[in-house]
Amino acid sequence: MSERVGTPEPTPPVGVIGGVGPLATAYFLQRVVQLTEASRDQEHVDLLVLNHATIPDRTEFVLGRSSEDPGPVLARDARRLEQFGVRFLVMPCNTAHYFTQQVLDAVTVPFLSIVDVTVEAARRRAPGLTSVGLLATAGTVASGVYRDAFAAHGIEVLTPDDADQARVNTVIYDQVKAGRPADPDALRAVAAGLVERGAGVVVLGCTELSVAAVDHGLLDEPPFCDSMDELVRATIVRAGHRVRRP
Amino acid sequence: MSERVGTPEPTPPVGVIGGVGPLATAYFLQRVVQLTEASRDQEHVDLLVLNHATIPDRTEFVLGRSSEDPGPVLARDARRLEQFGVRFLVMPCNTAHYFTQQVLDAVTVPFLSIVDVTVEAARRRAPGLTSVGLLATAGTVASGVYRDAFAAHGIEVLTPDDADQARVNTVIYDQVKAGRPADPDALRAVAAGLVERGAGVVVLGCTELSVAAVDHGLLDEPPFCDSMDELVRATIVRAGHRVRRP
Repeated sequence: MSERVGTPEPTPPVGVIGGVGPLATAYFLQRVVQLTEASRDQEHVDLLVLNHATIPDRTEFVLGRSSEDPGPVLARDARRLEQFGVRFLVMPCNTAHYFTQQVLDAVTVPFLSIVDVTVEAARRRAPGLTSVGLLATAGTVASGVYRDAFAAHGIEVLTPDDADQARVNTVIYDQVKAGRPADPDALRAVAAGLVERGAGVVVLGCTELSVAAVDHGLLDEPPFCDSMDELVRATIVRAGHRVRRP
Repeated sequence: MSERVGTPEPTPPVGVIGGVGPLATAYFLQRVVQLTEASRDQEHVDLLVLNHATIPDRTEFVLGRSSEDPGPVLARDARRLEQFGVRFLVMPCNTAHYFTQQVLDAVTVPFLSIVDVTVEAARRRAPGLTSVGLLATAGTVASGVYRDAFAAHGIEVLTPDDADQARVNTVIYDQVKAGRPADPDALRAVAAGLVERGAGVVVLGCTELSVAAVDHGLLDEPPFCDSMDELVRATIVRAGHRVRRP
C-alpha cells in the first residue's frame, strides 16, 4: 500500500509523453493500473498523460523520408508536463527515444528511459547474455538506441533480415496502428529466427508490439522481453508504489 | 480523416478529468483510440488525461460516510486542464457528476457530461421510452443525477433493490476496482430484473461497469446502454473526428 493513500496529491508524480502511438499509450496507462498493487482507487499511481497523437512520424524522420522533425514537439511536450508539476517523465515509445537528448535538454526533472530499463531487464533475465534479438520499427533499428545501450555491456543486437523486418512492420503499421487484429505468430516466427542466430533474449522494442504481446499472451513466453512491460514496472516503482504480485 | 492530419496541434482539444477510477480512465482512453476512424497515429484525437487516482472516494462523500470532499479537487483538476489549453472537458466517472456544478464554476471551457450523452443515447435507442433501469454505484443512485436528467424527459429511473444493488457493488468495488475478474452474469441478472419491472433500456451508469462490459461483450447486448461508450463516441465527434464504422 502506498504511503500517500487518503491524501489526494496536489500534482501527479508521473508525466507521460504519449500518443506515440496513441493505442500504445492507452495500453501503457492500463498496464500501470493493472500491475499496481492496490485494492482501491486511492492506492493507485497518479499520472498526467499527454496523448499527443498528431506528433510527426518518428520513423519517417529517422529514416530521412520526412523533414517534419518530431524532436522539438516531444521536447515541448516534456517541458509542458514538467511545468504542470510532474516529478519524472516517461515516454512509452521506443523510436521516440532517438530524440532523448532533446527531451533531456528541455527539462530538469528525471527521465526514465524505456531503453535503459529494457536493457537492465534483459541482463537480469539472462546473466552472461552476449546477443539479443530486436523486434522494432525500422526507425528504432536504424537509430541504434538499443545497439548502443547493449554494446555498453558487450551485448550484440541481432536484427531481422529485410523479409522478416517487413513482417514486423506489418504488425506495427498495418495491424496495431491501423486498429486491426495483430498476428502473434508472425512475431513468434521472426523471434525464433533470431534465437536460432544466437539471441538469448528477444526484445519487443516497439510499444505497438507490446500491445500485440498483451493481447496474445506473449509476455509470459520465452524468449520475449517486452519494453513496455519493463517501463510499466519501473514507472510504478519509481512513483513509490509496489508491483502487483502474480 | 481529420482535417488536422499532418499538423501537430499545439494543445490537445480534450481534457480528461480522470482517475475516478483509474482503470476506467485507462479504458476510456483506449476506447477513444479504438473507436476513432483512423489508419495511422496522426489521424487520432489528442487528449490530456489527468489520471488523479488519489481523489477522495465520491460515493463515500455523497452517502455522507466521509467528510473528504472530492468536489474541490475535481474543480481544481478541471481548472489545471483548462490552463493547459484544452478546448473541452470530459470526466469518465458517473458518480463524480454529482460535483458537475463545482467543475462548471471552475472553468470557462465546455464540459461534455456523461449523464447528458447517456440520456440522449437511451432516448435515441428507444423512442417513447418511459422507464430505464440504472446500474451504478450507490453514490450515483443517491445523487439523483440520472433520476433528474431522465425526469426532464418524463422518463422514470428504476434502481435495483438492496440485494441486487449489493451484487452491483461487488462487481464495482470487489472486482473491477480491486483488479479482479468481473462477473458479467451478475449484471445480466440484475438487468433482467429491471426489464421485468418495465425498463426499456438498462443504463450502465458506472464506468467500472463499462470496463466489465467491454471485457465481456455487454456493449452489443440489449438492453444495455453503456455510459462510457456513449461518452467515448461523443468525445470523438466533439473533437472533430469520426467514429469508426463497425
